[in-house]
This record gives sequence, structure tokens and C-alpha cells, in this order.
Amino acid sequence: MTRTVLESKTKTVVIGFDEPFCVIGERINPTGRKKLAAELEMGDFSTVEKDALEQVACGATVLDINSGAVFSNKMAEDPRYADNNFVEPPLMRDLIARVQAVVDVPLCIDSSVPAALEAGLAAAEGRPLLNSVTGEEERLELVLPLVKKYNVPVVAISNDDTGISEDPDVRFAVAKKIVERAADFGIPAHDIVVDPLVMPVGAMATAGRQVFTLVTRLREELGVNTTCGASNISFGLPNRHGINGAYLPMAIGAGMTSAIMNPVRSQEMEAIRAANLLMNHDPNGMEWIKLAKVLDAMKEEGQSFAEASAAAASSSAGGRRGGRRRRG
Amino acid sequence: MTRTVLESKTKTVVIGFDEPFCVIGERINPTGRKKLAAELEMGDFSTVEKDALEQVACGATVLDINSGAVFSNKMAEDPRYADNNFVEPPLMRDLIARVQAVVDVPLCIDSSVPAALEAGLAAAEGRPLLNSVTGEEERLELVLPLVKKYNVPVVAISNDDTGISEDPDVRFAVAKKIVERAADFGIPAHDIVVDPLVMPVGAMATAGRQVFTLVTRLREELGVNTTCGASNISFGLPNRHGINGAYLPMAIGAGMTSAIMNPVRSQEMEAIRAANLLMNHDPNGMEWIKLAKVLDAMKEEGQSFAEASAAAASSSAGGRRGGRRRRG
Repeated sequence: MTRTVLESKTKTVVIGFDEPFCVIGERINPTGRKKLAAELEMGDFSTVEKDALEQVACGATVLDINSGAVFSNKMAEDPRYADNNFVEPPLMRDLIARVQAVVDVPLCIDSSVPAALEAGLAAAEGRPLLNSVTGEEERLELVLPLVKKYNVPVVAISNDDTGISEDPDVRFAVAKKIVERAADFGIPAHDIVVDPLVMPVGAMATAGRQVFTLVTRLREELGVNTTCGASNISFGLPNRHGINGAYLPMAIGAGMTSAIMNPVRSQEMEAIRAANLLMNHDPNGMEWIKLAKVLDAMKEEGQSFAEASAAAASSSAGGRRGGRRRRG
Repeated sequence: MTRTVLESKTKTVVIGFDEPFCVIGERINPTGRKKLAAELEMGDFSTVEKDALEQVACGATVLDINSGAVFSNKMAEDPRYADNNFVEPPLMRDLIARVQAVVDVPLCIDSSVPAALEAGLAAAEGRPLLNSVTGEEERLELVLPLVKKYNVPVVAISNDDTGISEDPDVRFAVAKKIVERAADFGIPAHDIVVDPLVMPVGAMATAGRQVFTLVTRLREELGVNTTCGASNISFGLPNRHGINGAYLPMAIGAGMTSAIMNPVRSQEMEAIRAANLLMNHDPNGMEWIKLAKVLDAMKEEGQSFAEASAAAASSSAGGRRGGRRRRG
């Protein structure tokens, strides 16, 4: 069975067909988070540290670290800041150092700038996941040598120089091309985690079925693990968490093995924990029972999912058995 | 594609591979509902009528009518009441008359007593679903002639004279035997809705995967629709609605086409509506958007799911477009 091995300083996480679904926390990403970008520009990493702790408490076993910040004020003073090749590599190093100082989980180094990817690879402890390569020629030639040099797994996004195809057969073919090209570099298929690209079901009614079929094919025909940006599926529709909360179990049932997502939402995490149980990837239901206690605590004490998860984690770390006590 | 056609007085419901998931409301069932059994014993059908209306408002498109009541007081006075063959046929007739007087949806006639099944078939308008036949010889010989005589579809439960096998291959073989025996009676496979029998995942860790695999096989190899008692999967575990809410989308993704379940719970119905959307069985997301409004109303006005669903149904029936108004 395919196993993609990730490591932090002391911990190993396996993405695999016989493993619990791997939740890759997406929050540490200044793209589209203006407040966070402004904090990073001022050298303030407090939100990053909080996001790292919260996501791990809620169940992320890997954290995505995206360095795609735009430093508008600095740019006004110094034109070099208009270039991401200048901004991202040192920012990636700083982000990784800060995150590794507060949590011990494998990282997913996420940038469109190859120099930032390499800076991340140098800074990360253990065996991080590289995010990402695509089927674009230039990208393949820039990223695959890094993957080989650092002996790390990589996310392969199934678009190429012609863009993102709406035809799932084309997206499958692009994934196949990346796997074959990686093999030319000596990179094994079990170190490729394919993102088949999830379209919003509100824009394309077949989007859900496409992904389920693609994931099964990728697994059976290429033997690769898979991932996705889970929330894309519900873009533009009301009650997005409800759609995500059904999409994730269905994707897991079809064979998807990880997602890049926000783990601080209880509805999605409840769906994933239940799917793990139903896939027989939760021995004795231990993780399910833990989650049920966290959900009870939320109801009883009005806590957020992150607060209740953190409280449960610290009480079990403190040696009290069974997590937080139920009221009598 | 397999289509099982059910009818009420004026409405048609199709259980099928290309149809929205069919929700069969399970509430009208005195087994294990002592209060309801006591009411029925006194000739009080108010709970039955309320349950019929609520379940339909919440999204059941078929209602199960189970006549398995024990009339303890009457039994003390008249020993004939100890015999279900005496109690159930007239009760089934009364239940069906009361339900048909308040809602216009196809019924699922549910009894272990053949005379009650026949009484139900005589009383039901349209084309009801018969619940159930098993692979037990006696049951096959008693029920299949009724199925043929009344030209109705039937639920086929995959146990036989040896009991319920834990081996999914045996359960598949029992289903196959029932389909073949039905064919001998001239009953087509599209009128058999197989219940592959769902074990509790808390007792058998492989229960979820077993069902998903079985449903896919039943669909691909026998071409039949499928159903299940949805809540069995979570028996004995905490936060059962959370497990059911992931199980249903996964079962739907695997090809399950109906379930006998409690539709008055929002978590399960939200999961099913989202799965319909993701399977491309909700044109333009109309049902999803309606549900999202009901869930909003629950939060904003503190209503139960049944109350909010009933309010939305009556406001749209009254001609106001878009259901209940959002607060501005």
C-alpha cells in the first residue's frame, strides 16, 4: 500500500491508503489574509504562532506554510519588495523557524517561488512535503530537481501549460505525466501526492463526481496518494461547511488520503473523524470518542472548537485520563 | 439505470441510480416506542399524524408504516391480543388511513405478519413498497406471492434461515438468491430494494467498509437499488448523529439509493442534501439552498428542524418565493 512518509523533528506522519486521513492545516497563508500580511510585514508572528497551535490542537497533523505575502508599505520605500523572489525566501525561513519553535509536526512548504521552496527545504526539520509542482514544463524543471536533491515528497497539481482542464481525463493525464517525469528524476510514485483540482460544484454540477472518480483512478492506476483544497468544492454556495462536511467523507470513501484545509472548524473535522472510524482507520474508536468529548464541552461550556480542543489536549497531556471531565 | 417506482394517491417517487437519495421516514413504528404503542391501544392517532406531517416537512419522500404494537392492557382482558396476527392487520389499516388522510406520499408497509402486509397492500393508495422479504424459505413463500399479486416493489433483507452472516459475501449471496427467487415469480430486479444489513461499527470495525463494498457490488452485479436502517451503524457509540452524518454521504457515494431513517434530525438531512448536490442529483442546487435557509431559520429563531422545515414548506406553498424571509 502506498505510504508517503513525512517527518518533523521527532514525529512521523504517514499519508497512506491504510492510514487515517491526513489533515494539512491551511491557515498559515498570507494570501487573501491582509491582516496577517500586514503583521508579517511588521515582523509580528503572533498570529502565525497562534494558528500553528490551534490547528494542531484541532487535529491537523501537518501544517502548510505559505510565504506568498505582499509587503505594500515596504514596497513603497524599496522597489525590491515588489519582487516575490526577494520577499519570500527570508519570510519562509522566518515562518518555519517560528512554527517549529511552537509545534512539532511535519510542514508543507508552499510557494510559487522556487527560491522560497529551497529556503524552506533548508530550514525545515525532518522530511517536509513540498507544495507544489505542476505539469507546466518550467515548473517541472525547477521543482523536481529540488524534490530529488532534498529527498522529499511533493504535491503535484494536475494543470499544465494549457491551464486547468475541465475534462477529468486530461487532468488524469497531466498527473500521469508528472509521475512519469518524476520517475525520470528517480522520484518514486509514493512520494507524489496528486491534487486532481477540485472545481466548485456551484459552477460545475459534475465537480463532485469528477473528483471521486479521479481519486479512485489515481489510486488504482498510478498508486499515488491524493490531496485537495477541500473548501473549493463549496465556493459560492450557502452553508459551505455543510457541503465540505459531506464532500470530505465521500472523497475519503473514494480513496482520497489528505486535504489542505481549515481544521479549526468542527463540522469538517467531525466528518473526517467519523469517516476514519467508518474506514476502520480509528482503532477502537479512540479518536472518535475524544472528539465526542470535545463537542460535548463546546455545547456545555460555550467554547469554540479550538478552545475545547486545546483544553482536551492539555488535560490529556497533563495525565488526566479521558480528557476533560463531564459535568455530573 | 435501475428505477424502483413508488406511488401515493397523486405522487410518484423513484428510487434510482440517477435520483436524489430516497429518505424513508422511520418514525411511525410502535416497536420500542412505548408511549406511541399505548396511544394506539387507546385509538389515539395524534402522534402518528404529527409524525407523518413532520417527517414529510423535513424531507422524507416515503413513510414507513410499522404495525408491530403490543397492546398490553387489551391482552390482559382478551388473550387474542397476544397474537400479532390478530392485532396487526386492523392496526395497519387504521395507520394507513390516518397517514393517507394527512400526507400524500408513497408508503412503506412494514410488518413481520403477512396478514398485516396484505391488509396494508389493500389499504394503501398507489404503489407502496413492501417491507420486507428475507432469504428465509418460509418468508419467501409467503411474501413473494403478495409482491407479485399486488405488483409492488419489496425490501429484501439479506439474512436467511441460518441467520445474519458477518461475512459480506454470504449476505451478497442471500440477496442474489432472493433476486433469483423473485424472478421465478416474475418479479423484476428493479422491484427489489436490497437491505445488505448494516452492523454497528462499534461492534465490528469493518462494518462501514463492508457496507460500502456490498452496496457497490449489489448495484453493479445485481442491478438493484439498496436501502438500510441508517442509524444501526452508530449503535452504542457517542455522538451518533455525527457518525450517521458521515456514513450516509459515504454510502451514497458507494451507490446506496435509499435509507429507512429519522428525517427529523438536521445533521443527517444536511448530509444527505449535500451528498445529493455532490452526486449531481440536485439541479441548480435548489434543494441545498432551501435547506440552507431552514438551517439559518433554526439558528436565528431557535426553532427545531421540524418547525423550521414546516414553516418553510408552508410559506413556499403559500406562494411566497424563496421560503421564509431572512432578517434584514
